[in-house]
Amino acid sequence: MPELRKDPVTAQWVIVRTERPHRPEDFRPPRMARDPGPCVFCEGHEDETPPELWAHRASGDGVANGPGWRVRVVPNRFPTLRVEGDLERRGHGLYDVMNGVGAHELVIESARHGDTLATVPLATVEEVLHAYQARMTDLGRDTRFRSVVVFKAPRDGTGPALDHPVSQLLATPTVPPDLSHELLHARGYFDYRERCLFCDILQQEGDERTRLVAESDHVVALVPFAARTPFETWLLPRRHLASYQHVTRAERRDLGRVLQGVLQRMHALLADTDVAFVLHSAPFADGDVPFFHWHLELTPAAAFPGLPAHGIGFPVNPLLPEDAAQFLRGAMA
Amino acid sequence: MPELRKDPVTAQWVIVRTERPHRPEDFRPPRMARDPGPCVFCEGHEDETPPELWAHRASGDGVANGPGWRVRVVPNRFPTLRVEGDLERRGHGLYDVMNGVGAHELVIESARHGDTLATVPLATVEEVLHAYQARMTDLGRDTRFRSVVVFKAPRDGTGPALDHPVSQLLATPTVPPDLSHELLHARGYFDYRERCLFCDILQQEGDERTRLVAESDHVVALVPFAARTPFETWLLPRRHLASYQHVTRAERRDLGRVLQGVLQRMHALLADTDVAFVLHSAPFADGDVPFFHWHLELTPAAAFPGLPAHGIGFPVNPLLPEDAAQFLRGAMA
Repeated sequence: MPELRKDPVTAQWVIVRTERPHRPEDFRPPRMARDPGPCVFCEGHEDETPPELWAHRASGDGVANGPGWRVRVVPNRFPTLRVEGDLERRGHGLYDVMNGVGAHELVIESARHGDTLATVPLATVEEVLHAYQARMTDLGRDTRFRSVVVFKAPRDGTGPALDHPVSQLLATPTVPPDLSHELLHARGYFDYRERCLFCDILQQEGDERTRLVAESDHVVALVPFAARTPFETWLLPRRHLASYQHVTRAERRDLGRVLQGVLQRMHALLADTDVAFVLHSAPFADGDVPFFHWHLELTPAAAFPGLPAHGIGFPVNPLLPEDAAQFLRGAMA
Repeated sequence: MPELRKDPVTAQWVIVRTERPHRPEDFRPPRMARDPGPCVFCEGHEDETPPELWAHRASGDGVANGPGWRVRVVPNRFPTLRVEGDLERRGHGLYDVMNGVGAHELVIESARHGDTLATVPLATVEEVLHAYQARMTDLGRDTRFRSVVVFKAPRDGTGPALDHPVSQLLATPTVPPDLSHELLHARGYFDYRERCLFCDILQQEGDERTRLVAESDHVVALVPFAARTPFETWLLPRRHLASYQHVTRAERRDLGRVLQGVLQRMHALLADTDVAFVLHSAPFADGDVPFFHWHLELTPAAAFPGLPAHGIGFPVNPLLPEDAAQFLRGAMA
């Protein structure tokens, strides 16, 4: 008998299949051909992107828009939203419209074409996380923007066409729908209980331990109780904090360690699968509210049959979250 | 400059690209190989499915579970939810769970393998719409179920693996997320204005006419103001009615005519593309509430680059809804 589980953060009911056993191999996606590079994001091709907005270089190594960098942030040459112009909001009869003002940036996660966050030096993962923080802080000064979402798209035609490891930042004049839903439900939970929903989740998951994937001083990785896909994993800071911009250096370093460890486990289980992720942080105007708690949601590409989400919205997860967590815990052993 | 448009029904902001001109051919998806059949859903193979729940046979043509039918409804042999057993709800710490009770049925839309709703006789489309009504009415008597969603999945690996034309019914013990959101926003609109949101949309669209695709006595087809994908089209009845179960025969016949016409236009524009759809009708317990209005949402498979919905939730539509409507209006001319 399948089970319907409700995620308290997304308020989404998920159909979880309970037939067992499964093997992790059952969920391996088909291998995709990799392009060998080099590409416009590779070291030595800096003049083929718009000028950089941020970069990490070892001290004394190179100059802006030249080689010698480890992580580099550039504007997206094909932005989904445009950074120029004033924000205009208007009604159109009963409808609402605003012009598409925003910022769309690319975080080049390595100077080398074939890298992934699982294979780069740990220091590079930390610099990527540092880049997110620096760019979010900078974009937060622009009063046209309500929030920034950082995400990594899977290579399914919706992300950058190249195999160079890249994540994206999108600053938007309205809170993106998925984050908006989480804020709504987290606020409702806080209004009722006067406690942070995410802190309560950390408490319960720490007690039960069946869905934990990894732990460190500052960060916990777990498979959500109502995971929408096999091996979906969330990384949450132990300390209550709504805005990622305000993480400490120690938290960021710990996040890098846990993130790289979880990615390596996913790659080991799922044959170097792509892993999409999204960083949810409170909107700028909310600041460090008591009801929200920043976190990173990871979704490895996995092959599985499911009911389409279109028009129904029920994800169907063929793998019990407790089994997924157990597979991930055992992956590197 | 792109535009952000908010759909008042889904409460979703959509990023609409405004570069023009586009040609409909730009959105044609790659052709997929068709399996030639026959399959378990073909006439003469009735004993390879579970016994039928409903069928339309010309008077005197054949007996139950034998040949001679035009439309046939059978239980899904691989159901997402199970029809047996009592509904059990429970808490698990701060989480919520129910067991996966539901009904999952298949509506076989034609006795012939290679048909689609665009190519079958019009009378068959009407019988398919009749089958939806009959099965929804029957399933509504089961007090374990909150609502039924009728949908047609695209052939992208999430629907039935066979090319036989089939739509699905899913009766669920909780209102599916997408329908639940629509109910929430439509109720909020009604509470504020004391008018049905969908009736107001019909009024404005009838005045503007730029997003209309087709009209008949009882049914209007239009591209939503904030369409999420190119050529997304909604079919709405002119008469306010929350529950599809209560359509009249005249409305059903008109719906069949408009549906087949729109599908034929989509096939003409997009090279016989698959068209997914979902029928949103009020949950059983709501009955004929003043704030909801049943409708059919059509989404043709189309090739286009977009931002992934995952974790962000912003659909990116590369085609202006007004242009999509114009293409569809001109498709058969």
